[in-house]
Amino acid sequence: MPSISKKGRNMPQSPIRKLVPYAEQAEAEGKFIYYLNIGQPDIKTPEIALNAVKDNDIDILSYSRSEGSDTYRNKIANYYAYHNINVSHNDIIVTTGASEAIAFIFGSIMDPDDEVIICEPFYANYIAFATAASVKVKPIVSRIEDNFALPAIAEFEKLISPRTKAIMICNPGNPTGYLYSKEEIEQLAAIVKRHDLFLISDEVYREFTYDGHSHFSILELEGLDEYTIMIDSVSKRYSMCGARIGCLVTRNETVRHTVLKFAQARLSPPTYAQIASEAALSTPQSYFEDVKKEYIARRDTLIAELNKIKGITVATPKGAFYCIVELPVKNSDHFAQWLLESFSVDNETVMVAPAGGFYSTPGIGLNQIRIAYVLKKEHLIKAVNIIKEALKIYKD
Amino acid sequence: MPSISKKGRNMPQSPIRKLVPYAEQAEAEGKFIYYLNIGQPDIKTPEIALNAVKDNDIDILSYSRSEGSDTYRNKIANYYAYHNINVSHNDIIVTTGASEAIAFIFGSIMDPDDEVIICEPFYANYIAFATAASVKVKPIVSRIEDNFALPAIAEFEKLISPRTKAIMICNPGNPTGYLYSKEEIEQLAAIVKRHDLFLISDEVYREFTYDGHSHFSILELEGLDEYTIMIDSVSKRYSMCGARIGCLVTRNETVRHTVLKFAQARLSPPTYAQIASEAALSTPQSYFEDVKKEYIARRDTLIAELNKIKGITVATPKGAFYCIVELPVKNSDHFAQWLLESFSVDNETVMVAPAGGFYSTPGIGLNQIRIAYVLKKEHLIKAVNIIKEALKIYKD
Repeated sequence: MPSISKKGRNMPQSPIRKLVPYAEQAEAEGKFIYYLNIGQPDIKTPEIALNAVKDNDIDILSYSRSEGSDTYRNKIANYYAYHNINVSHNDIIVTTGASEAIAFIFGSIMDPDDEVIICEPFYANYIAFATAASVKVKPIVSRIEDNFALPAIAEFEKLISPRTKAIMICNPGNPTGYLYSKEEIEQLAAIVKRHDLFLISDEVYREFTYDGHSHFSILELEGLDEYTIMIDSVSKRYSMCGARIGCLVTRNETVRHTVLKFAQARLSPPTYAQIASEAALSTPQSYFEDVKKEYIARRDTLIAELNKIKGITVATPKGAFYCIVELPVKNSDHFAQWLLESFSVDNETVMVAPAGGFYSTPGIGLNQIRIAYVLKKEHLIKAVNIIKEALKIYKD
Repeated sequence: MPSISKKGRNMPQSPIRKLVPYAEQAEAEGKFIYYLNIGQPDIKTPEIALNAVKDNDIDILSYSRSEGSDTYRNKIANYYAYHNINVSHNDIIVTTGASEAIAFIFGSIMDPDDEVIICEPFYANYIAFATAASVKVKPIVSRIEDNFALPAIAEFEKLISPRTKAIMICNPGNPTGYLYSKEEIEQLAAIVKRHDLFLISDEVYREFTYDGHSHFSILELEGLDEYTIMIDSVSKRYSMCGARIGCLVTRNETVRHTVLKFAQARLSPPTYAQIASEAALSTPQSYFEDVKKEYIARRDTLIAELNKIKGITVATPKGAFYCIVELPVKNSDHFAQWLLESFSVDNETVMVAPAGGFYSTPGIGLNQIRIAYVLKKEHLIKAVNIIKEALKIYKD
């Protein structure tokens, strides 16, 4: 019998996925579940995007351009200009979700066994894309007691080897909600320049920044054009996760030229989704203001409720819609499973994401969970109450 | 300055892409071009698919299931049952085009430097996906004088090494139009079983078989469940290239389980395109009969016209909508470029695909071109006439 590859065997499975059967079982038993585990917003997609697809006049659903249409990329460039990022449509390659942008970047700049440095906790699928590209993630721990700020640059220096090709960040961060300051980004700029590394920034949550903090993109750095590669997506911005449209943006022509070859091999991004995404760019600014207001209210509610629980630590997010919570438990994988299998309040329970999967250093983050505040306030209050009651009786 | 990877530098660019600037220039000069170079059919997408998207009632465009919805996969399984292929919906993983299916399969079964044997000429992007996965394509030449039939099994035996993980075919073939017989597929079955290799078959042109020949899928083989992986797509079948929906089908549970992890990492296939693809499965059989009739008429016209040209050899395709033509030229890359740059009849010229890019053995196929008969008959007649006139004056 033929056997699969070492790479195939090493492909990680997200710890959330492992919980799915327990959630299905709980629902089958009639329990109501508050899903705090996923980044699927309950916010409505802008009507302008939905209507553009309904009103399409396609008669032959043909390939589009591999890099995305000129009109769409021009509109994206205008959107960035509004956000203080000056790029031309030529600097943009449209991808099938941010996921594909990551795969294209890893493929273009790294060979098997090359290394990318990422601060943990990080978006769990980065490990999957690294495994798929046969490259290694070198993690640097950022700490809940520092609110997940950028670790000291000396920590990065220690990890840089001849195989290091890039430093990658997520800003604002999933799962931390941390928003890097201009000063932190400038520290990273200095180190990548010193060591001739790429600086990759996943900025899909750019729009979601709170408390008057504004987002500073790596593309705003001066003199770093050859070093910086930015990843973006319509998924969270317009509550269009199912579109599968993202992009990568870089002023480095060699990188773009190489990425384009990956893009041409897969022919084109999905056509209907590009129609929706192009239309979404005309979403009025008030939509974002409303959405942001809603997320801030949710975050404030969530943090206030969590802080009523004794023995836990919460990092206050400045962006995105996640926060990491440290619990008085030994193993949050087990706690999360137990919540689904064995606990309920008024026949309701919660599903959380154990944070161990967001770390690649073995054995750390095991007492943490990630909460996505993508539910309305009343539900968040009920969900946190369930966690509170659960912790009273849970035994590791 | 940071540098891209060896892999990035090795990513091939299709020879067709290199011709695009010459085509753009020709159009800018007012020339009309008959595009014989691409597999983008001019056939209308079934209305039932287009209407399903127009009539959608999505209000939050959320992630779908990573492996595709149960309802869609059940309908795909029914479609296969109609074509004598008995699989369950569990054997199917929906992908973003056949392209992604290839990437997932290469990633799941092969490690860097592993090898896959493919008969050349083959779909040029196979090389790109192999390069992206850091694996090697070992080519076996199939010959125009044999109409591109399966090479002798002894040729495969010669190439099998400890690093060989799979044999891959495209059936019916792009760019050859060759349809493998049941006997040829059984020969491949015997060799993969003997050497514990996977047998991968790209069957996206399944529907397009002519002259009473019927398609024999690798999934119809008995006792090969652990060995066979089939790739499919809606792109050509329903003239829905821009949907970007394909799938892979295998009864090998380990492979599926591994591929699913790749699928989960990229979250989900595009939602709108799945709506179109699911609806497309209700396309009446008469649609295919009409389309097939049209392609047969085009093929017959094309072959008859080509055979009027002295000094050329044409392989008669039994499936798909491509044929390979051997010309009395030394370098078809140059000939194709010259057609665009320097030749026209009544201010009209043609764009063809030089076949060198479909071979990975250097230096072969250089006197061949691929013609996609995706234009109506009158245009094919005019286009072939242009080639005929061109050959009268062209000098290598």
